[in-house]
Amino acid sequence: MGAAVPIRGSRFLVTGGASLVGSATAQLLLEEGAGEVAILDSFYQGSREAIGHIEGDARLKLVEADVLRLPQLLAATRGMDGVLHLAAVMSLTMDRDPWMGLSVNIRGTQNVIEACCVNGVKKLVFPSSTAAYGYGPGIAGDLVEETPFHSAGAPPAAILYGASKIIGEQLCRDAHLKRGLDYVALRYATVYGERQHYRAANALYIIETYDRVKRGLNPQVIGDGSETKHFVHVADVARANAAAFASEATDVALNISGPSPVTTLELVRLVTELAGKDLEPEHLAPDASKVRLTSGGPWRLDHGAAERILGWRPEVDMREGIRRLIAWRETGGQTLRV
Amino acid sequence: MGAAVPIRGSRFLVTGGASLVGSATAQLLLEEGAGEVAILDSFYQGSREAIGHIEGDARLKLVEADVLRLPQLLAATRGMDGVLHLAAVMSLTMDRDPWMGLSVNIRGTQNVIEACCVNGVKKLVFPSSTAAYGYGPGIAGDLVEETPFHSAGAPPAAILYGASKIIGEQLCRDAHLKRGLDYVALRYATVYGERQHYRAANALYIIETYDRVKRGLNPQVIGDGSETKHFVHVADVARANAAAFASEATDVALNISGPSPVTTLELVRLVTELAGKDLEPEHLAPDASKVRLTSGGPWRLDHGAAERILGWRPEVDMREGIRRLIAWRETGGQTLRV
Repeated sequence: MGAAVPIRGSRFLVTGGASLVGSATAQLLLEEGAGEVAILDSFYQGSREAIGHIEGDARLKLVEADVLRLPQLLAATRGMDGVLHLAAVMSLTMDRDPWMGLSVNIRGTQNVIEACCVNGVKKLVFPSSTAAYGYGPGIAGDLVEETPFHSAGAPPAAILYGASKIIGEQLCRDAHLKRGLDYVALRYATVYGERQHYRAANALYIIETYDRVKRGLNPQVIGDGSETKHFVHVADVARANAAAFASEATDVALNISGPSPVTTLELVRLVTELAGKDLEPEHLAPDASKVRLTSGGPWRLDHGAAERILGWRPEVDMREGIRRLIAWRETGGQTLRV
Repeated sequence: MGAAVPIRGSRFLVTGGASLVGSATAQLLLEEGAGEVAILDSFYQGSREAIGHIEGDARLKLVEADVLRLPQLLAATRGMDGVLHLAAVMSLTMDRDPWMGLSVNIRGTQNVIEACCVNGVKKLVFPSSTAAYGYGPGIAGDLVEETPFHSAGAPPAAILYGASKIIGEQLCRDAHLKRGLDYVALRYATVYGERQHYRAANALYIIETYDRVKRGLNPQVIGDGSETKHFVHVADVARANAAAFASEATDVALNISGPSPVTTLELVRLVTELAGKDLEPEHLAPDASKVRLTSGGPWRLDHGAAERILGWRPEVDMREGIRRLIAWRETGGQTLRV
């Protein structure tokens, strides 16, 4: 068993924290009595608006720094009990700029691990992704933690992103074996919720549908919409991050997904309904120039291991999650264009 | 179809060329009438001894440079028709130094691709590896180009190495799609042969067995030796590299393997026999501190696609290949300790 970091009284650093997952996790850690929550962000993708709702808490600290700069991380991790390393680029950014994308996801993670080891951080929570299983025709059925990485038929950026997450997990494992760093890797399903951004190919379906139907336009679905997507609400992800710190679990990768998957068509209909609109989806032919994430049949990101090991299970289903996202948006929440 | 680069009269750059595969390929390209063969090496792992046998050919050029330095690659690729990008670290070096290892394999490849695109190189041959299918219990049966990457149960360094090769292939694909770079990725089985080095966990079996039996010691096998290994002789790899240049094939990854796999025990017995010794293998318990590459059952790296697409097939079986390796060694060839 590894180190447990109780939330109450402990000091946490969240890299890439001015973000969807970072803001929800920081809020939860503060609510649960954390001694300090430092949000580190380069604002390459993050935004100050994402953490506006928790500003003013004296335990919250903002560190403008870059995970590509090891000296900044050495300073920022000093005295920290737990580090949540969210700073990463996803497939759309990876497509635009693989040079930067691989630097952030790989060298950035090496820097964070180095800083954690040097400063004796008790536990690192490393956000991995369902992308660690890949995409394309090979993806079908239950994805469990031992499922291999499928890349045949997937776009380069999605494979680069998935492989960068596999590398991140293994860098944690290497540091655990050689330097005793305790870590938990969490393979998030597609995260959605309040403070949604436009950077994830799958989550775009939610926000783009909402944007269109609010303007009275029919929602759009690429192809027949029968393909499976598995989402997880950001509040459940925040709880999983906290549970990974508080648990004695170490040297393990665990799936973190919502109660059940949906098809794209079901999702688009649900968003349309909850936005209060009665508009039929229109079906578009795929655009080969865009990153599109496909699978080979119905599939599910199985979260049974997280339940057994962390005592965590998702609480927010898609209807409730999308209701919350829309409520946030309709009370002035601005989705970030970056 | 992509660009074909005929060997006769063309100019080639071989990064990481002062090596097992580089030296054999450079020799073959020269024999087949190449106009120029430039060997680029940082001598981080390469050695001048590895290219001693072709020194003196006026068409051979040695460039001491580092794939981590883009300006050096921009200069070295100018006017080149084909680039073979061998510079990489393998799993044992990756285990010792993952920081350097990922830099060389990923940023090094990004630099080579950038230089090829800027200078209009007609074709890049990217050496990938059987490691792109991973290791551990998931590896069994025929490995074909669509087989996913298995990592459950494998050591971190082997996964880092395999994932870095997957990333290299996808960086080539991305450059093909966005910038028109023609490339062929070749997934080599474990390469062995004259000018063998000590850097590959699997190939070590050959040279370590030879070293022991020549001193009259019993050869050693970890475990029962029943696990499968699939090798390919360096002369066949050199022919595959040349075939990839000369063919119009592009945007494809192809397995390059020897005629058939062997078990570790068969291999150790074969090396012992060809070294002229009559010594029984002794079986050792696995050492958990060493990188060990396992599989789930008998397997084979299928080279049918390379035969269909490149018209290439292996010609050197293990008996002949090991005979050649030993003949080289017994006429003064020094295996490189690096």
